[in-house]
Amino acid sequence: MKKELPIALSNRHIHLTNEHIEKLFGKGYKLNKLKDLSQPGQFASKEKVDIVGPKGELKGVRVLGPARNKTQAEISLSDGFKLGIKPPVRNSGDIEDSPGGKIVGPKGEVEIGRGIIAASRHIHMHIKDAKEFGLKDNDTVRVKVPGERGLTFDNVLVRVNENYALEMHVDVEEGNACGVKNGQIVELVG
Amino acid sequence: MKKELPIALSNRHIHLTNEHIEKLFGKGYKLNKLKDLSQPGQFASKEKVDIVGPKGELKGVRVLGPARNKTQAEISLSDGFKLGIKPPVRNSGDIEDSPGGKIVGPKGEVEIGRGIIAASRHIHMHIKDAKEFGLKDNDTVRVKVPGERGLTFDNVLVRVNENYALEMHVDVEEGNACGVKNGQIVELVG
Repeated sequence: MKKELPIALSNRHIHLTNEHIEKLFGKGYKLNKLKDLSQPGQFASKEKVDIVGPKGELKGVRVLGPARNKTQAEISLSDGFKLGIKPPVRNSGDIEDSPGGKIVGPKGEVEIGRGIIAASRHIHMHIKDAKEFGLKDNDTVRVKVPGERGLTFDNVLVRVNENYALEMHVDVEEGNACGVKNGQIVELVG
Repeated sequence: MKKELPIALSNRHIHLTNEHIEKLFGKGYKLNKLKDLSQPGQFASKEKVDIVGPKGELKGVRVLGPARNKTQAEISLSDGFKLGIKPPVRNSGDIEDSPGGKIVGPKGEVEIGRGIIAASRHIHMHIKDAKEFGLKDNDTVRVKVPGERGLTFDNVLVRVNENYALEMHVDVEEGNACGVKNGQIVELVG
């Protein structure tokens, strides 16, 4: 059974609805691709926004494309402290009862009532990867990271989809806690 | 054998020599205690300094007392990125070949040639604790943290001293990576 896969750090970012893109960047505005991300079809856009909370703000948060049907910001727990909110640790898309904030773009601003989360660590797998690893969608696994800051993550969610490329995603704090670099190889353990 | 102990997050901070305290705060200056820390004799002072690197700065970094014989700043890897330096992961006191920076106080500034590190996670133990845990100074252990962001830290250094109180110390990124709060109980595992 396959055990090894690459890991990558996700910096804070935001996904926006088309409605919010227009409010922040102007009527009829479309995101401009800066570069493709590892997951097929996903891209970092040239656009950035500020996120404002009750206690502080995060300047220049990267917008990821394409547009989604729900606006969702993924930040770290330290970012949440800076904003003055407590983002729950959630899977992407699960924004129920999460805090909101003010999103500021060059042409306008939007107050979102919810949508700010800290993303749960997870593994993207194509269907063929899942077969090789002997795993299925929504399984949880443990992942060992080697090195001087080595550790083993529990509760790593496996997401399987024909549009996914094999990669584990952690946020910046999780990545720095184990001192990993993008593309470093980590190992599934029992 | 005892297995459980409390964990605490160390925010970025700096230890200063008496010489640097005088350069930053004025001739004959003594640190003013804000509050005692968990380790006997150690305290958070009321004083703060800024640390300036080639790419950015960290404002209001807490000075810990009492004065030490080497100036040493302990910051996170993300803090290092903000400053534009790469702090090595080191045990306290081991600042050989670490990067330096400019330390700015209200009455002056100091350029330090080295002394900026990311502190290795570690456990402080009194001699009597060490006996109960069956451990000795400089052992390394693994520590399991429970919860939704649960994980197991490898390479946790054990420091034993008659002046230490039982507590594991991690930096903010390590603490947030496992979602712990100060005082939460963690467990030594084999």
